[in-house]
Amino acid sequence: MAGAPDEFGLIAKYFAPLAAGFPGALGLTDDAAFLPPDAGHDTVVTVDAIVAGVHFLPDDPPGLVARKLVRVNLSDLAAKGAVPFAVLLSAAFPHGTGDDWLRAFADGLAEDLKEYGAALIGGDTVSTPGPLTLSLTALGKVEAGRGLKRSGACVGDVVWVSGTIGDGALGLLTATGKLAPDAHLLDRYRLPQPRVGLGPRLIGMASAAMDVSDGLVQDLGHMMRASGVKGDLTAWTVPLSQSAEAALARDHSLLATVLTGGDDYELLFTAPLEAGGAVSALSAEVGVALTPIGRVVAGQGVAIRDARGRALTLKHGGWRHFTGEAG
Amino acid sequence: MAGAPDEFGLIAKYFAPLAAGFPGALGLTDDAAFLPPDAGHDTVVTVDAIVAGVHFLPDDPPGLVARKLVRVNLSDLAAKGAVPFAVLLSAAFPHGTGDDWLRAFADGLAEDLKEYGAALIGGDTVSTPGPLTLSLTALGKVEAGRGLKRSGACVGDVVWVSGTIGDGALGLLTATGKLAPDAHLLDRYRLPQPRVGLGPRLIGMASAAMDVSDGLVQDLGHMMRASGVKGDLTAWTVPLSQSAEAALARDHSLLATVLTGGDDYELLFTAPLEAGGAVSALSAEVGVALTPIGRVVAGQGVAIRDARGRALTLKHGGWRHFTGEAG
Repeated sequence: MAGAPDEFGLIAKYFAPLAAGFPGALGLTDDAAFLPPDAGHDTVVTVDAIVAGVHFLPDDPPGLVARKLVRVNLSDLAAKGAVPFAVLLSAAFPHGTGDDWLRAFADGLAEDLKEYGAALIGGDTVSTPGPLTLSLTALGKVEAGRGLKRSGACVGDVVWVSGTIGDGALGLLTATGKLAPDAHLLDRYRLPQPRVGLGPRLIGMASAAMDVSDGLVQDLGHMMRASGVKGDLTAWTVPLSQSAEAALARDHSLLATVLTGGDDYELLFTAPLEAGGAVSALSAEVGVALTPIGRVVAGQGVAIRDARGRALTLKHGGWRHFTGEAG
Repeated sequence: MAGAPDEFGLIAKYFAPLAAGFPGALGLTDDAAFLPPDAGHDTVVTVDAIVAGVHFLPDDPPGLVARKLVRVNLSDLAAKGAVPFAVLLSAAFPHGTGDDWLRAFADGLAEDLKEYGAALIGGDTVSTPGPLTLSLTALGKVEAGRGLKRSGACVGDVVWVSGTIGDGALGLLTATGKLAPDAHLLDRYRLPQPRVGLGPRLIGMASAAMDVSDGLVQDLGHMMRASGVKGDLTAWTVPLSQSAEAALARDHSLLATVLTGGDDYELLFTAPLEAGGAVSALSAEVGVALTPIGRVVAGQGVAIRDARGRALTLKHGGWRHFTGEAG
């Protein structure tokens, strides 16, 4: 593809070093990358796009933008139980994107690729008259045929979620001045923690899995639909951080934001009731809280219940509207 | 990822049908796709982005935009000798992108994926306040370790190119009213013909290969640099269509556009002198013109010569400036 005028210099200067250690990337000097055959493993591939002003704030630090881009994709791989090994970056940079910005962006990318053991093996950089638009393709490996899917949840299974829910959505409110400043919430919004250590360990334990990106209620709805079952979510058991609890204590109407706001990048999964002990042991082993938040029942959609078992109705569903029964 | 408000309906309606026949795509209802192991084959992966107003005209027919997006990527795979099998689409649609537009876009995508035997196995759709921005990740297969690369051209090799050069760049001039209307040139600009049948047949014959997308001279420069050699290009042997010849007859200064304008999506490759007969036979067999346009010599960069052997100097180098010695 014809790229930005300085495409080649940009790639050589900032991005080619991130291809080191992956021979098939050909040092980012070729049109495509080669992935060698890997008998016994499926390759898992996912792509996510983020747009300035939509998915991140235009004045967010460039290094954090890069790292969030990596992490939201690795979260998808983790949800499949896959171990990441490579990414491709497709970037539309606004005219006049400066050298300082690009260096900081590449530094952030390098930092996270190193942390998660993935190489940059290809991509495309173009110019745009519009906002910065980034698309990352991420590749992972999982034992052939054993990758986790959204489908597979069975009636009677327990619904589990990792970490805490709502911090990302509340963090966005703090970043935009709609909530009081809170370093924990802001950090959770800007720098998700993809559960790459946890995901592969759920293979053989979880009956279905996905990551929570659109919002807990919507994503549980997606999983239940893919599995042909219904989710019975107990809102009061959804794990919250101290910051989120404090925010809810001040304004309980934020519960809808917590349950539907998205940007959590936690793992949502179902497992048979009898696997509860193994899930708890895994939680201790990997050092990530795993909390039961409901059950799988016959039917369709998602019911949300309060501590007394009464159905909750949430007026605003984040990215989609729904009323109690979502999905 | 949090997507456009109507992301799920859009995917189910327009894109999920394009995943049929590829089990690992999971009907586009999951976070990622699974590629089964394929012993003996490398997976080849490439990504290209296009932006409205930069790489295509905002009022180009949506079906053609989709097909061009597919074809520029498949051209990269063909240059590796790979056979395409799957794509992932990452699309940032401007607010208010209409149903008619999306239907026509999906129809074009479906048409080309069917033609080239590839399934849509994943993607992401988001909203943007900016121009339509599309990124396609394309996946192909090639016998392990035998894929073509840019590096590998040797001193003494002949430089070959498929089809005709310059039509795409001249087509853009006709599309924007800077040249007289010409259906052939316009068609070549809007709908490249990736050499998917030719590419895999070059394995074992070509010493280096790439597709011509940035411009013949620049791309030859890239290949020569990757191979550590110099290209001696005879401008008068570069194959032209009748339309391009007519345009040059009217205005010889268009030669620079032809040689450096890009958007050709032909295959540029080198082969040992003694392979000439085999290359000619292959040309006849696959029905694609293959023309020798120069030699590989010791040195670096690209020299361009006219019919009398004199060095040509092109003032404007398309996406990059150069003066005679490019790359």
